[in-house]
Amino acid sequence: MITAQAVLYTQHGEPKDVLFTQSFEIDDDNLAPNEVIVKTLGSPINPSDINQIQGVYPSKPAKTTGFGTAEPAAPCGNEGLFEVIKVGSNVLSLEAGDWVIPSHVNFGTWRTHALGNDDDFIKLPNPAQSKANGKPNGLTINQGATISVNPLTAYLMLTHYVKLTPGKDWFIQNGGTSAVGKYASQIGKLLNFNSISVIRDRPNLDEVVASLKELGATQVITEDQNNSKEFGPTIKEWIKQSGGEAKLALNCVGGKSSTGIARKLNNNGLMLTYGGMSFQPVTIPTSLYIFKNFTSAGFWVTELLKNNKELKTLTLNQIIAWYEEGKLTDAKSIETLYDGTKPLHELYQDGVANSKDGKQLITY
Amino acid sequence: MITAQAVLYTQHGEPKDVLFTQSFEIDDDNLAPNEVIVKTLGSPINPSDINQIQGVYPSKPAKTTGFGTAEPAAPCGNEGLFEVIKVGSNVLSLEAGDWVIPSHVNFGTWRTHALGNDDDFIKLPNPAQSKANGKPNGLTINQGATISVNPLTAYLMLTHYVKLTPGKDWFIQNGGTSAVGKYASQIGKLLNFNSISVIRDRPNLDEVVASLKELGATQVITEDQNNSKEFGPTIKEWIKQSGGEAKLALNCVGGKSSTGIARKLNNNGLMLTYGGMSFQPVTIPTSLYIFKNFTSAGFWVTELLKNNKELKTLTLNQIIAWYEEGKLTDAKSIETLYDGTKPLHELYQDGVANSKDGKQLITY
Repeated sequence: MITAQAVLYTQHGEPKDVLFTQSFEIDDDNLAPNEVIVKTLGSPINPSDINQIQGVYPSKPAKTTGFGTAEPAAPCGNEGLFEVIKVGSNVLSLEAGDWVIPSHVNFGTWRTHALGNDDDFIKLPNPAQSKANGKPNGLTINQGATISVNPLTAYLMLTHYVKLTPGKDWFIQNGGTSAVGKYASQIGKLLNFNSISVIRDRPNLDEVVASLKELGATQVITEDQNNSKEFGPTIKEWIKQSGGEAKLALNCVGGKSSTGIARKLNNNGLMLTYGGMSFQPVTIPTSLYIFKNFTSAGFWVTELLKNNKELKTLTLNQIIAWYEEGKLTDAKSIETLYDGTKPLHELYQDGVANSKDGKQLITY
Repeated sequence: MITAQAVLYTQHGEPKDVLFTQSFEIDDDNLAPNEVIVKTLGSPINPSDINQIQGVYPSKPAKTTGFGTAEPAAPCGNEGLFEVIKVGSNVLSLEAGDWVIPSHVNFGTWRTHALGNDDDFIKLPNPAQSKANGKPNGLTINQGATISVNPLTAYLMLTHYVKLTPGKDWFIQNGGTSAVGKYASQIGKLLNFNSISVIRDRPNLDEVVASLKELGATQVITEDQNNSKEFGPTIKEWIKQSGGEAKLALNCVGGKSSTGIARKLNNNGLMLTYGGMSFQPVTIPTSLYIFKNFTSAGFWVTELLKNNKELKTLTLNQIIAWYEEGKLTDAKSIETLYDGTKPLHELYQDGVANSKDGKQLITY
């Protein structure tokens, strides 16, 4: 019998007010044929996890009494990396020691262990398997635990909607220093797409510009330059010199930043909105729509992949391959180890409070 | 030899300042084999015609000395109805008496006559031909002269992008009293689509609502209702009762009116922007893009049909058929006859000045 811990809530609210740790038991001596027991290696705190707890996110986990609570309660967390510790007699695709991630959202990843069916999980190579396959690198816990949202978002936005011609065409993105922004710059370089990253001005601007160019951004400009009519011709000239067009914009900011990147696109351009960090709506001049045939659409990785396991697997495999080959750098998280000295939910509550300093990952 | 008049400009500016009438000659005794001579029956004054003269419209006629001016000059007007008066020896598709419209924009329709090639024109049935074909109605000059922009815009927006299920699905549009808005309401009814038209509040609201419902709008609401959270459930209930979804929004206003109609759409909705009467940009909350998979695109009939003569012909034929069957009512114009007592350009200058009272049509 395994005694496990999970972070739950019965009522929506601020994580500091509503989370609690629930102990529950997993009977590892009586597994059903398709069941799998996993232990958690790490799970991050994403903004959408917090919004789910607050009750303001459209995708929500079902509440259940399966954890042994009197009232129905919902588990927290959507991304996470697990290690298989035992499998049922019918499970052929997984064995003890394999690394897995949840195959769907709302699984609940803020917990020490989980019992699921084999189709609840997608297998990733563990470091020993990568080594055995002759790969230069194995995945890290951070890479595995954060693979489902940000790298997939960046890759799919760059490849699933608009065909950019390698060596010629451009994409432009705001939020260039965000996790998705950094993945997009790197993946853009790996696919040989030109890119412009828009970032906020800051005291160490030159240093940040240099680091983003090192990652893969072709050009890095400030929001002031993005909004400046005077700077427009410089960007046009970059694009012209490349022999390509600016066909795709990635927007996670909104407001005038979204207006600015939309204006940089050539005719028939597409902007994908995947976030709204400024809390301002997406604002586009009428003339762009009518006379430049501009289109503004949304991107939500959860919805796109919900019923498309093939696309999810293909995309994951590409990201895994790049990690194993050392071609892709993950967005670093601030890691905190769960060692049992504090109740589990307090680690996540501390993590929510510290999220302003960077992405938080709880490791086990 | 025919002595013709055309309204031209050599410099962009306000129509009242830059237009002039140029006399030119058409040699009707020496037609090249593919040439066609037409006389004008009527040509309207569209906002885009004015914007072309001002130099603020992306599509512009080429300047030419072909009208006999010392400086190169551009002809005005894009829509118009002509009657063929003579054809060259190779022209088999047209004969004297046929009604035609220009096959492309920037032809110059503010003139008494024109010399072109047979492929510069698209034939419409004249009233005698409609009668001979057993149709209840022939086209009027207003219907022929204004067929290329507004009815085609309404029909194509309703049919070319989203498949609405007849008897169930809905479109919502602002600018419900505009010419395109009225065509959309009528065509929506002819195609059995449910529709909501948003209009500004006004003293004779009940009367206007009744007239739009008579034309074909399923529901008519005010901008206040469009922006009202309290009114939202009423609209949701209409849509629910129909068993369909609100899949398409048509926006010619922008600003919060565009936000309001976008919010009414079900998941995966599309908004087409074809005008910006409020001079405010199109403003859409980030959450609609991400969580409702909303898409915002543009519509410009000129660009869509530029290289698609087949689609233009099919669409025109549908509109003509509805006119001939008396199923479609044209947007009435205020007509002024050119009788030679005033120079031609002054009629168009007066028409521009009077455009605030309604669409102006100069007849010949």
